[in-house]
Amino acid sequence: MDFQKIIAVATRRGIFQPAFDAYGGLAGFIDYGPVGVKMRRRILETWRKHYVIDAGCLELDGALIGPEALFQASGHLGEFDDALVDCNDCNKQFRADHLIEGGEEMSRKDLGMAISKITCPSCGSSFSEMTSFNLMFSTNVGAGKGLPGYLRPETAQSIFLAFPWLLRQNRGKLPFAAAQVGRSFRNEISPRQGPLRMREFTQMEVEHFFLPSNEPTLPDDLRNITITLLDASEKETTSTIGEAFDGGIISSSLVACHLARAQRFLTTIGVSNEKLRFRQHGSNEMAHYSSDCWDGEINTSLGWVEVVGVAHRGDYDLSAHGKGSSREFRVAVPGTEKETEIWVPDIGKIGREFKGDAKIILEAIKDTELKPGVTVDVNGTKVELNSDYMVQKTERRSEMVYANVVEPSFGLDRILYCLLESSWKGDGEREWISLPQETSPYDLLVAPLMTKDGLDDKAHEIMKSAIDNGVDAYYDEAGSIGRRYARADEIGIFFSMTVDHQTLEDGTVTLRERDSKDQSRLSIKDALSKVRR
Amino acid sequence: MDFQKIIAVATRRGIFQPAFDAYGGLAGFIDYGPVGVKMRRRILETWRKHYVIDAGCLELDGALIGPEALFQASGHLGEFDDALVDCNDCNKQFRADHLIEGGEEMSRKDLGMAISKITCPSCGSSFSEMTSFNLMFSTNVGAGKGLPGYLRPETAQSIFLAFPWLLRQNRGKLPFAAAQVGRSFRNEISPRQGPLRMREFTQMEVEHFFLPSNEPTLPDDLRNITITLLDASEKETTSTIGEAFDGGIISSSLVACHLARAQRFLTTIGVSNEKLRFRQHGSNEMAHYSSDCWDGEINTSLGWVEVVGVAHRGDYDLSAHGKGSSREFRVAVPGTEKETEIWVPDIGKIGREFKGDAKIILEAIKDTELKPGVTVDVNGTKVELNSDYMVQKTERRSEMVYANVVEPSFGLDRILYCLLESSWKGDGEREWISLPQETSPYDLLVAPLMTKDGLDDKAHEIMKSAIDNGVDAYYDEAGSIGRRYARADEIGIFFSMTVDHQTLEDGTVTLRERDSKDQSRLSIKDALSKVRR
Repeated sequence: MDFQKIIAVATRRGIFQPAFDAYGGLAGFIDYGPVGVKMRRRILETWRKHYVIDAGCLELDGALIGPEALFQASGHLGEFDDALVDCNDCNKQFRADHLIEGGEEMSRKDLGMAISKITCPSCGSSFSEMTSFNLMFSTNVGAGKGLPGYLRPETAQSIFLAFPWLLRQNRGKLPFAAAQVGRSFRNEISPRQGPLRMREFTQMEVEHFFLPSNEPTLPDDLRNITITLLDASEKETTSTIGEAFDGGIISSSLVACHLARAQRFLTTIGVSNEKLRFRQHGSNEMAHYSSDCWDGEINTSLGWVEVVGVAHRGDYDLSAHGKGSSREFRVAVPGTEKETEIWVPDIGKIGREFKGDAKIILEAIKDTELKPGVTVDVNGTKVELNSDYMVQKTERRSEMVYANVVEPSFGLDRILYCLLESSWKGDGEREWISLPQETSPYDLLVAPLMTKDGLDDKAHEIMKSAIDNGVDAYYDEAGSIGRRYARADEIGIFFSMTVDHQTLEDGTVTLRERDSKDQSRLSIKDALSKVRR
Repeated sequence: MDFQKIIAVATRRGIFQPAFDAYGGLAGFIDYGPVGVKMRRRILETWRKHYVIDAGCLELDGALIGPEALFQASGHLGEFDDALVDCNDCNKQFRADHLIEGGEEMSRKDLGMAISKITCPSCGSSFSEMTSFNLMFSTNVGAGKGLPGYLRPETAQSIFLAFPWLLRQNRGKLPFAAAQVGRSFRNEISPRQGPLRMREFTQMEVEHFFLPSNEPTLPDDLRNITITLLDASEKETTSTIGEAFDGGIISSSLVACHLARAQRFLTTIGVSNEKLRFRQHGSNEMAHYSSDCWDGEINTSLGWVEVVGVAHRGDYDLSAHGKGSSREFRVAVPGTEKETEIWVPDIGKIGREFKGDAKIILEAIKDTELKPGVTVDVNGTKVELNSDYMVQKTERRSEMVYANVVEPSFGLDRILYCLLESSWKGDGEREWISLPQETSPYDLLVAPLMTKDGLDDKAHEIMKSAIDNGVDAYYDEAGSIGRRYARADEIGIFFSMTVDHQTLEDGTVTLRERDSKDQSRLSIKDALSKVRR
């Protein structure tokens, strides 16, 4: 099954289509139709079962537009960019690393050198100097000129910024993990390959926070999961996660834990083990926030496609927001509490001396670590506070540190594409999507043999009962039963039920299993309980 | 329960908080925390049950960023704006209709007159001329200057644009309805009141398409739903939907049907009948696309809050896209097929005469209604095609019309706020959220009496079994049982289960019901089956 055929079937059967084609299209955006929405929801439900329910992640749903200061601190304004070149003659723009073999793994300097040696693939002229193009979509918030705002390039930043709030929800305890599902946006220079490189896409991300001195260990139930790893030196090994961690291929126990969880999740939804590997990033390839990163990749007709990244982000983000904002993003290290001499303002003296300005001074030194000699800006005048304006006090204080974080980040759009491609089956007679029931768009087709003699009424009645029992059922009465089976197979409906004259007599139906085509005659009740997930 | 208290509890208990407060905040954006996400998901699941599963809507998930041509055609670029005034002295900006009593219902002309008579509430100076401020967030798509793009101001446009695709998914048949849940964006001049007037919000929308000659009738199971209506003449009546429709208060059977469905959905999730009314828009208040509109409003401490609008949009949107784009948005009217004389191009002759340009000509007249005398632009030269280049042909053709649409559009953020406020209970001893189990954030609290003697292990085992049975359970072992009940009540957990020493002996637990505080001693199995939704 190749890319073009998947795209054709996806459009024909309401899985997805390029968005805005009536207006000439807009590259990098797609619409999901009725069948695609169902499949996405099934994948999402399974993901939530693994991460939110079973692993107990706290779920967040943050705003998509954020202020400039946030992305200044997170590094996205400065470093989240692609190298761009313009042709000096035809003015076409290209993403530089797509013009050079292996360009995505090159440093900017090497890439610039390589680009200077080639010419425009479109007209043969020379290129301009390589420039940086920031990948965030920008907008303005508010009337008039407004404030600069950006569409988030990853859901993760909402979680980092909410860390103090989420920590309180967890009653101050580490470790904990937070999950988020939602849209992210990247203004790709050359989006392509349908759902594989999009400008607007859906991420499912987890940020697992922990104290570096107390990193979660690899749980026993994950140790025996088999995984294929391709490390930064390009050495490939297939072993259990436990062996890979013990052997030092994976250096962090929490990274090992999330590689195992990602492997388990992906195989649960229907990715076959043989088509899945985790590839470690080389140092040139790593994002600005990351100290170790493994991409979960699925082998497709287009090559290996990244569907999840497991990154050790250290304390990059929390310390960036701690330093860039007015809030405390650090946590107290348990067991480090001790008596500490601290300086506190002498409020009486400051009030007497500075009168009306005292409030400004007290506000400015609030929440800071006070020391004699500190200067404060009072309406443009610098005021120095020496030890006369402070008193010493003994307090019990803990050492404060930034939590570290390991992040598994899944791309829902790519997962759906890879699932469609890898689960496509054909035997000459028919074609079908062979997904586990968990991720099939519908559990059941309900099909009356004909639309007379009350067979359609009976089928509707069974539909209602199926739905009341939590079965996701699809009704189809058009055309021959064979045609209806074929249509159901093509979108991967797991079971098909035929209602015929015998149903009216003895309450039995024919239940057909999609993959094997096995048919059995069962009572309606037995059939529905077999179909129910 | 008032607004400030809801906001305080929501922040403290992880329901929602203002977003970006670490960076000074950004008005009109909020983050949903772990409890808020659960409540939103429960509301959404119920909505999907009502609309997607029971009513059989086709669900779509469209792109959030769209091209300029789309919003040009939909009217949002020209007409989706607020009236803005600037103070001539202090430069503060105000939404004009918020400065005048009843301003939201005034025409622009009347509003301008009224504004010219008042002064700035902040400094007392005069105002500038009233200007229009478009409420869409704009951005640029692509490298360099890029193409202008906008964040969608309603999810509806994705559905209208996908209409031809969705119609094919429905095998060309009308009526059908399409549903969509997702983010929308409005660059409000003065966002306020937390989740009630947001710049980024979540809509749950249905577009119900039908032929005007064949409008769906009001189904019997909806006729008997009781509803309070306040019509455009401000006359309030409480009656069944059937009576209101028969009596002419509601003029469209499909509008009546969707008012009934909205009423049923809102009361299912926990809005009380007495706090709910549907208010018809006056003609000045109506959106540019709407010919009749009823707002479902909930009575709160802040007054009546709109949570759903049921609008008859006629063929406004489909005809706008039909005329504004290159696609066919009309449908054939069944039974109107007849023999029609049409002109088709004489491909041979055009080929012989125009040679290399023939392809351009044929492409230009493809999908148009051909007539002798049509002119085509060939590389800048106008070419007229007379009847020599065409042949007449008889075809069976149907009358083509634009489908009409009735739209119920729900605001998830507002619904959640109103539910929190209306379901808040206090009896002096305790405070609790009294929602139906369907929309409570958790089904069950599992609480071991103490964390020793194996009670916590047993509680964890029950947790696992509850989760495996589809129960959304919350584990809490901190503090006294009374404290834990209080914490659970405050976020509306429906049942609480206490695991004690007797549990280890005879396998029974204490199950407490949130609203009544009734406790009963049950086997674990019976307790879980009672808890299971």
